Amino acid sequence: MHKTLEEIRKLPEGIIKAQKAFEDFTAKYDFKLPREILFTGCGSSHFLSQLLAMATTHLGGRGVALPCSEILYSRKYYPVGNPQLLVAISRSGETTEALRVLDETDLPKLGIAAYDSNLLAKSDYALLVDTPEESVVMTHSFPAFLFAFQQLLNYSFEMPLYDAERLSELSMEVLKNEEYIRGIVEEFDFRNVIFLGSGILYPVALEAALKMKEMAIFWSEAYPTFEVRHGFKSVADEGTLVVLLVDEPFDWHEKLTKEFKGQGARVLTVGKENTGADYFVKIPGPSIPESTALYLSVIQLLSYYKAVKRGFNPDSPRFLSKVVKW
Amino acid sequence: MHKTLEEIRKLPEGIIKAQKAFEDFTAKYDFKLPREILFTGCGSSHFLSQLLAMATTHLGGRGVALPCSEILYSRKYYPVGNPQLLVAISRSGETTEALRVLDETDLPKLGIAAYDSNLLAKSDYALLVDTPEESVVMTHSFPAFLFAFQQLLNYSFEMPLYDAERLSELSMEVLKNEEYIRGIVEEFDFRNVIFLGSGILYPVALEAALKMKEMAIFWSEAYPTFEVRHGFKSVADEGTLVVLLVDEPFDWHEKLTKEFKGQGARVLTVGKENTGADYFVKIPGPSIPESTALYLSVIQLLSYYKAVKRGFNPDSPRFLSKVVKW
Repeated sequence: MHKTLEEIRKLPEGIIKAQKAFEDFTAKYDFKLPREILFTGCGSSHFLSQLLAMATTHLGGRGVALPCSEILYSRKYYPVGNPQLLVAISRSGETTEALRVLDETDLPKLGIAAYDSNLLAKSDYALLVDTPEESVVMTHSFPAFLFAFQQLLNYSFEMPLYDAERLSELSMEVLKNEEYIRGIVEEFDFRNVIFLGSGILYPVALEAALKMKEMAIFWSEAYPTFEVRHGFKSVADEGTLVVLLVDEPFDWHEKLTKEFKGQGARVLTVGKENTGADYFVKIPGPSIPESTALYLSVIQLLSYYKAVKRGFNPDSPRFLSKVVKW
Repeated sequence: MHKTLEEIRKLPEGIIKAQKAFEDFTAKYDFKLPREILFTGCGSSHFLSQLLAMATTHLGGRGVALPCSEILYSRKYYPVGNPQLLVAISRSGETTEALRVLDETDLPKLGIAAYDSNLLAKSDYALLVDTPEESVVMTHSFPAFLFAFQQLLNYSFEMPLYDAERLSELSMEVLKNEEYIRGIVEEFDFRNVIFLGSGILYPVALEAALKMKEMAIFWSEAYPTFEVRHGFKSVADEGTLVVLLVDEPFDWHEKLTKEFKGQGARVLTVGKENTGADYFVKIPGPSIPESTALYLSVIQLLSYYKAVKRGFNPDSPRFLSKVVKW
């Protein structure tokens, strides 16, 4: 079996490990997150940093996320504000650009990685989430990092903690859709895919599009949900799958679904209820942001099966390496 | 001749009209832009609002840009701060979502449009840039709006004004590359295109990818320049054109160019100097942000000729309308 599939399926234990990482962190450091935080990462870790920034802002803080290279070379164009902490994310903890940002930033630093690494060594506070992966592509460690940080946010901002055991069980329930998702890919040989999400589900859509590129070397796009009507939707036709990530749909989501079907596209809705789509995967349990991690397995499985269908080996995509260096 | 091509070629007069719009505005209102501004728009107007936000931040202000629908439905996830002004952009001035944001926002409002419209009527300050367009797709009005607002920024923040006559002349020089750009499209029948830009050239890359989708119904992508190495580059091969927008290249740009050529892709560099690319279009005159408007014609021409090559009518793309309503 592909390592990638094994690792996607590890989310239930990933959430438990994330809880452990959070507990180890609070046992080790007498530290609470400040209100204003600058987040950074590259690729998937950048989308993760967008998620963490949004979770921070949602709780009344101010989270800003920038890709490492934009901090290094174009920072003057971004409203960074006056952060009291830099949070840097890298699965390997060895990404050149992330290490450089740490070296060049004069702020307290919190690093998040899956390995004892230079990133953690250079950080004042190390959040080590024990979810190593053999595949090139980041899968279950992404929602695990997210959950560990969400707990740290709840703890720091004096909000009730999430129930890790329960979320882990819910993630098992979501993973039961594997055959259904595989079936969509088998039945509909789509030529491109558009992921849509609003708010904290927008970076999930971005990460979904990236997974699809990495694993399936495939035409994939992502937009803030209703932005797609402003020009982007021209590329959607009978060869297109639209994946609508939505926690609490309202009438515009149904209209949008109908509009895409009118263009010949098929729609997969992932969320609390169907919007009149051709396909539907239910995300059980609490609302976003708590349930955000659960959306990730669905889009990872979709990319995985598309890769297999297209004859690619998702474990080692062409032109990519596990750690990006300069 | 297609309206779209006529309108792309109107940039030199568009810049003069933008200067006039700025002068009319300052004659009419005793008003200077505040330091903290929230910008909004949809589609191209959202990318334009990102440009204006970056130009604001670059001058020491704090500009935040959000798509209209994200303000309406997911604002709690974004670090909006405490803006003293809302700037709303819509070419037609009749976009449903933009009008809604105006209705629901309790801030002083500045509207930017090419027509006397509801957007301007609902605004406390109306910046009317007289660059109407018959085509569905926004072309020369985009850099014209940008330039008018840049002048207003310079004026408000007490910086020297840009030289409109000179920029207009430089834009004629850039438009002389039309045959060269058409030649690239004729010679290389690329299957997908990736636009790269950092800082204020990143929204230009995003707008380029949107133009390509709208006009040529085509697989196009955009990333902050060095982010592309983090997974996204897997889709680049002998069928790919990479368009590198860069004002002041350094060694990483040359390495990146080489890396893409190593994957079989061809690279078009647009900027001050070639990075070792297969194709090169020089942007003359001042550096960014002043010269930002000049980059737009190049990417518009590229999309236009790709559309023609693919047999599409860029004046009226499928599934799209000139004004997006709900």
